[in-house]
Amino acid sequence: MDRKTEVHAEDGQHDLIITRTFDLPLELLFQAYVDPEVLAQWMGTQVLKFEGKRHGSYQFETTDPKGNKHRFNGVIHAFVPNQSITRTFEMENTPFGVQLELYTFEKLTDETSKLTMHVIYESVAQRDQVLQMPFVKGINMAHKRLEEVARAPKNHTS
Amino acid sequence: MDRKTEVHAEDGQHDLIITRTFDLPLELLFQAYVDPEVLAQWMGTQVLKFEGKRHGSYQFETTDPKGNKHRFNGVIHAFVPNQSITRTFEMENTPFGVQLELYTFEKLTDETSKLTMHVIYESVAQRDQVLQMPFVKGINMAHKRLEEVARAPKNHTS
Repeated sequence: MDRKTEVHAEDGQHDLIITRTFDLPLELLFQAYVDPEVLAQWMGTQVLKFEGKRHGSYQFETTDPKGNKHRFNGVIHAFVPNQSITRTFEMENTPFGVQLELYTFEKLTDETSKLTMHVIYESVAQRDQVLQMPFVKGINMAHKRLEEVARAPKNHTS
Repeated sequence: MDRKTEVHAEDGQHDLIITRTFDLPLELLFQAYVDPEVLAQWMGTQVLKFEGKRHGSYQFETTDPKGNKHRFNGVIHAFVPNQSITRTFEMENTPFGVQLELYTFEKLTDETSKLTMHVIYESVAQRDQVLQMPFVKGINMAHKRLEEVARAPKNHTS
């Protein structure tokens, strides 16, 4: 099935609700967000640090086609395996500020699962600025890659 | 001077801006937020953990007059001494969710300084629920105690 990631943004609010159903068992979906090897593959990023636990933290680095490096980082406020992650997220050296992100992972069937992301920005203006980028297209592409990589992560490293 | 803490809440928004000028040098104001001994005194809390650094975390516990224990905790996203702290904050087992808090510390004169707290809630409803409590009175009392304790913290432990 051709799955779509949906982004819901109410006018004048600080936040976004992002939902997606995956053709993946719950455990594989969750793993895609906490296993550094799988994360690196679908996000196309280098995982400099990833502490998948309550009061942990993470730091990623990507290199763009021009060779410029971009870092993002955050702290993990809460971490419940196969259920939820509450964390902060920041693209360093951008005007988007720090975001609070609440991820909820749900089992639908043995082979399908659902992710709900509640992303809260510092301001309405920052959220709206993010929405002016090709944000919806980008997250759809990323989630599609996640689904492929999570099914067979080892193919990519061997 | 009788200082007042001001709470600014715009209708229908997720956030609060809280400002206060203190009769304290910048360094003592900042210390009141990062020195576990000083924190414990003005907040009337037990500091179970406090890692005052980028990607650190903290856990406090208070005991109410009935002997019930209440815990709050969070992670520190960013930490710039005498300038700013970005952290999460959660009163555990309450309906208020997790908050993103941006603290900015500014020197006004050698003897006065200003704190600006930008607190962002998961939802407008949660923010409004907090405002229905004696929140403004509570934070004024806490900041008044902070000012006293920060001037002479050792008097309280000796």
